[in-house]
Amino acid sequence: MRTGIATVCLSGTLKEKMQACAIAGFDGIEIFEQDLVTSPLSPEDVRTMAADLGLTLDLYQPFRDFDSVNEDLLPGNLRRAEAKFKLMSRLGMDTMLACTNVATATIDDDDLRAEQLSRLAELAGNYGVKVAYEALAWGKYVNDYEHAHRLVKAVDHPNLGTCLDSFHILSRDWDTAPIEGINPAKIFFVQVADAPKLSLDVLSWSRHYRVFPGEGQFELAKFMGHVVRAGYAGPVSLEVFNDVFRQSDVERTAVDAMRSLIWLEEQSAQWLDIHPRVGNSSGTPAVSGAAVRRRYPMELATLPKVAEPAGFNFAEVRAGDAAGLEKVLGQLGFEFNGRHRTKAVQLWTMGHARVIINEEPASGASGPLSVAPTIAALGFDVDSPLLASARAQQLKAPAVPRKSQANEEVFQGFAAPDSTEIFLCQGNPDGTAAWTSEFGDEQATHQFPVALGASGGGSGSPTTGAVIDHVNLAQPWQHFDEAVLFYTSALALQPQPYAEVPSPTGLVRSQVMLTEDRAVRLVLNLAPLLQQDGGQQDSRYGGSSRLRRTYQEHIAFAVADLVATAKECRDRGLEFLHIPDNYYEDLDARFALEPDFLATLRELNLLYDRDADGEFLHFYTATVGSVFFEMVERRGAYDGYGAPNAPVRHAVQYDHLHQMKRSR
Amino acid sequence: MRTGIATVCLSGTLKEKMQACAIAGFDGIEIFEQDLVTSPLSPEDVRTMAADLGLTLDLYQPFRDFDSVNEDLLPGNLRRAEAKFKLMSRLGMDTMLACTNVATATIDDDDLRAEQLSRLAELAGNYGVKVAYEALAWGKYVNDYEHAHRLVKAVDHPNLGTCLDSFHILSRDWDTAPIEGINPAKIFFVQVADAPKLSLDVLSWSRHYRVFPGEGQFELAKFMGHVVRAGYAGPVSLEVFNDVFRQSDVERTAVDAMRSLIWLEEQSAQWLDIHPRVGNSSGTPAVSGAAVRRRYPMELATLPKVAEPAGFNFAEVRAGDAAGLEKVLGQLGFEFNGRHRTKAVQLWTMGHARVIINEEPASGASGPLSVAPTIAALGFDVDSPLLASARAQQLKAPAVPRKSQANEEVFQGFAAPDSTEIFLCQGNPDGTAAWTSEFGDEQATHQFPVALGASGGGSGSPTTGAVIDHVNLAQPWQHFDEAVLFYTSALALQPQPYAEVPSPTGLVRSQVMLTEDRAVRLVLNLAPLLQQDGGQQDSRYGGSSRLRRTYQEHIAFAVADLVATAKECRDRGLEFLHIPDNYYEDLDARFALEPDFLATLRELNLLYDRDADGEFLHFYTATVGSVFFEMVERRGAYDGYGAPNAPVRHAVQYDHLHQMKRSR
Repeated sequence: MRTGIATVCLSGTLKEKMQACAIAGFDGIEIFEQDLVTSPLSPEDVRTMAADLGLTLDLYQPFRDFDSVNEDLLPGNLRRAEAKFKLMSRLGMDTMLACTNVATATIDDDDLRAEQLSRLAELAGNYGVKVAYEALAWGKYVNDYEHAHRLVKAVDHPNLGTCLDSFHILSRDWDTAPIEGINPAKIFFVQVADAPKLSLDVLSWSRHYRVFPGEGQFELAKFMGHVVRAGYAGPVSLEVFNDVFRQSDVERTAVDAMRSLIWLEEQSAQWLDIHPRVGNSSGTPAVSGAAVRRRYPMELATLPKVAEPAGFNFAEVRAGDAAGLEKVLGQLGFEFNGRHRTKAVQLWTMGHARVIINEEPASGASGPLSVAPTIAALGFDVDSPLLASARAQQLKAPAVPRKSQANEEVFQGFAAPDSTEIFLCQGNPDGTAAWTSEFGDEQATHQFPVALGASGGGSGSPTTGAVIDHVNLAQPWQHFDEAVLFYTSALALQPQPYAEVPSPTGLVRSQVMLTEDRAVRLVLNLAPLLQQDGGQQDSRYGGSSRLRRTYQEHIAFAVADLVATAKECRDRGLEFLHIPDNYYEDLDARFALEPDFLATLRELNLLYDRDADGEFLHFYTATVGSVFFEMVERRGAYDGYGAPNAPVRHAVQYDHLHQMKRSR
Repeated sequence: MRTGIATVCLSGTLKEKMQACAIAGFDGIEIFEQDLVTSPLSPEDVRTMAADLGLTLDLYQPFRDFDSVNEDLLPGNLRRAEAKFKLMSRLGMDTMLACTNVATATIDDDDLRAEQLSRLAELAGNYGVKVAYEALAWGKYVNDYEHAHRLVKAVDHPNLGTCLDSFHILSRDWDTAPIEGINPAKIFFVQVADAPKLSLDVLSWSRHYRVFPGEGQFELAKFMGHVVRAGYAGPVSLEVFNDVFRQSDVERTAVDAMRSLIWLEEQSAQWLDIHPRVGNSSGTPAVSGAAVRRRYPMELATLPKVAEPAGFNFAEVRAGDAAGLEKVLGQLGFEFNGRHRTKAVQLWTMGHARVIINEEPASGASGPLSVAPTIAALGFDVDSPLLASARAQQLKAPAVPRKSQANEEVFQGFAAPDSTEIFLCQGNPDGTAAWTSEFGDEQATHQFPVALGASGGGSGSPTTGAVIDHVNLAQPWQHFDEAVLFYTSALALQPQPYAEVPSPTGLVRSQVMLTEDRAVRLVLNLAPLLQQDGGQQDSRYGGSSRLRRTYQEHIAFAVADLVATAKECRDRGLEFLHIPDNYYEDLDARFALEPDFLATLRELNLLYDRDADGEFLHFYTATVGSVFFEMVERRGAYDGYGAPNAPVRHAVQYDHLHQMKRSR
């Protein structure tokens, strides 16, 4: 698939945008007119620079408000077009996007439109330009791609064809199947954009909320499947107007964009594989799989397929001083499994939940090591770490070097958009992990009053079989959509509809990503802006630690009996997050709980939720640095995270933070 | 008018919210349930604290999803209600908001609903609680206030009445006139919120985009007029769900909120004055003016009325080092009018445009004086500075002390939300200002090669009669809505529909505020987030200078002949903002300009725009600190600001800034 992107998707100057597109590996670009008009580069400069960067200039856009006008407006419109055709010849470009008229159209007459478009095509022909006519979703008279293409057919001129834009088609819920009936030679261009489903007017939706494929809710693989079946083999180019991308670092956004096309290419191939065409006009037989894909002119590259991860292998917290973490993990019932043979790293386990405390300086960190503990890395169990890593790298995930000695397991790792390091591990079927044998030394034995080597509590312990239930990571606002696509494409997690949780400093957008079997649940939280400290995220670690300093993240562990666990934790002196009395009164008003049970919840600072599927009990620890821990018990088929209780947690944590500030 | 506000409007803990409401001067508050549930304060604590703060607890809210349910759900709903009634008695509260059912309603039957509401009212009566029933705009069966009130009438119970919420009524475009027919004793509560007109689903619109009265587009004065005429005299309470206010400083937002009610009170009185009731059921004769207002139970306080300002009196730029400003003002054709007798302040004039360069340290500045020049103050000509200042202070504008000596004019000043100091001045009818006589000294004469005391150029100069055309100020994102209300209410400027301008670092929201006669045009720009450096704006100057360091602001001067002015400026060596060639080619494609004229534009770096009303010529200077200047010529009745050219300006300025960074 030939990949492309419109310059309007990115921030910066035209020069910066072109360089970023080349670095990200795009084949070509669309020149958005305003980017050229505001640029000090001459058209010839742009042409040379594109050639030097290995980018083709695939589309000049947009040309607006041409058709359906009174005859007295036509000469001016043709004059405008001619000026652009001349400009395009200086740029060495041959395709121009013409949108259906939204502003100056006054005559709703297809014959007149065809005649006017015919004059445009004739003029374009004089300059060797192909005009790709696109139905805007809010076009005054023409807003449906089938209508636009009927006009193209009526004009029947070699210099007039169709441009298909997924946003304009899918935002209006137009049927995409008829795309297959379009003569591929008349599809001059294909633009793709995804978008969340919003009940906003389509113009505002289009101008502000488009996202890259995989970051929204449109059925883009199906759209692309029809385009491929039509026989189109030209560029597939991103045109995404997005308020956030316009502000984000241009090179990062270009990579995010490229990743979305690589992912879309794979998804389109899969759609074609499972939707074999059952007979058609060209008599293609109903054959499924890659064989049939090869019959289409567009070549679709695919990636190594990976299954969804089987679970969390470990979670790693980085800390300048591990004392606070050691204390709280011990109180939670974790056992110290020793220090790493060669690194300043500790292993703590509870059942099958493994937490690493890393006191090494961050790799690539430029400044001093942040003292406050932060969640630094997550390990996931996958079938084949090498294959999954190859996939992630093909998806342009930045690899993370993990220093390793001889005889030690080498982790395949890469950096998530929020700078968390993601490691691909191979867990054992019994829930253990081979690398844990690298831990354990005599010195440590004497430091902690717990036995070495034991994996989990005794069989009578309520935490036997404990696992990491979910991990909650704060996301910088500029990279939230990127993170969703990243975990979707590189780790095969599925995004769920997001929730919004009120906190004392603003609404927190909470996006769950999970596996089908719920073995992995990752919660991405978009914190309020004032907790993001400017949101500048240039350096991998510097940025991340700045964000996390003000917004707390956590790791949640699931146990079989939360009440018993909480009692043991209390007896070990754990500092629970204190839940206000008012919460329990409201809980009682809502759920009419048994008085004894309610008393137990209150006494132990447990939170409670219930829905049609089951019940949820949980508690939180106090925060260490920017990290805290949660213990949960899921009863029945409860599939949530106690969202109704999240505002209580936020309010209490906010109060603690402010008390600490005041007491300083 | 009794003023109130729901705690959900504000950020922080319940305690912080209550304190901020008391400081802002509210009479009472609505307790939003979640704020109580998440609070460590007991209900008794809240009651005591409110009493100590002089706040009444006017409404407990919300109670959801009660009516229209299957009979088997009713006992649970009554149980929930009873728990809340008991809680309210501990809080000492007597009014609860009950919303129409959106979630669990299954039976659309007004008789059943009335019967169920009757049981709720009966139960409420046992606890002395009044239930205010409110139709949510998205209520499943009841979403119209008239429908809700028909149910109240059908139940006919002293403990059930109506709650009117302007958002739920105006968002659905329900007619507000029938409010007057409601028995005032049955209007238990009135909530007000404004909102921009959006074509969003009403639930999202309501939950995220409500604003305080005067910050949106609802006809709230009319709504309130009907409420007053109905005979209601209870609290008028703000209920505003807004993503930004939830994140903003709680005390500032509370003051912003209070200002909106003070303004609404005045606007409502004016609406009543100009909409006398022509006969009605109670036989009130058609009398207009304040006399008729006194017949209504609700007392409406009004403010000193002020006319819109007659013009800009001056603009003031603060700078640690004035050299750069002196140079560019001189090149623009400004004349140095000397130094102030007692302060490190210079006066520069061109025609009637006056620019002050202030080298004094900022009043109240805690840190060192920011060296980079920033726009620090604006003077406006008003009829009566004392009256206008009294009005601003009643609108809770923070007064700004301006140090003054004997025999000097005392400026009445206050701080705008973005920290700009606003001074109210008395201009002379001939366009001069008396205070300018405080300037001028011998020493200065020798420093600049221009004559002293001359007001404007000679009569042959193209800048004779020059005035400040507009001033463009950057606004921090947390205070944009506040700024709109501030200038509307305190300075009688009128907000225009806003525009969005693309820049290399994101979209810039541009909001024009102006007087009817266009003598004052103020442009408020909401800069992209990454230019706001975290947006923390705690200290008046610190915050403001941080913002302005990264986003450039400007002062524009209007002259009669821009081409001649530009030539003179060029001859004086002015550094123009360089406009790329591509711009002029596009200009020609769009407007088909005379070749000579186009060549002149290009040669002088002039920008051009044209619309049905007239033409606009303008140019920009290079930036000094965070300030640049613009010269404009308006031809015909052109009323805009060359918005199509703004992206060019942004792109070129961005490029310069980055070149400077690279060359460091």
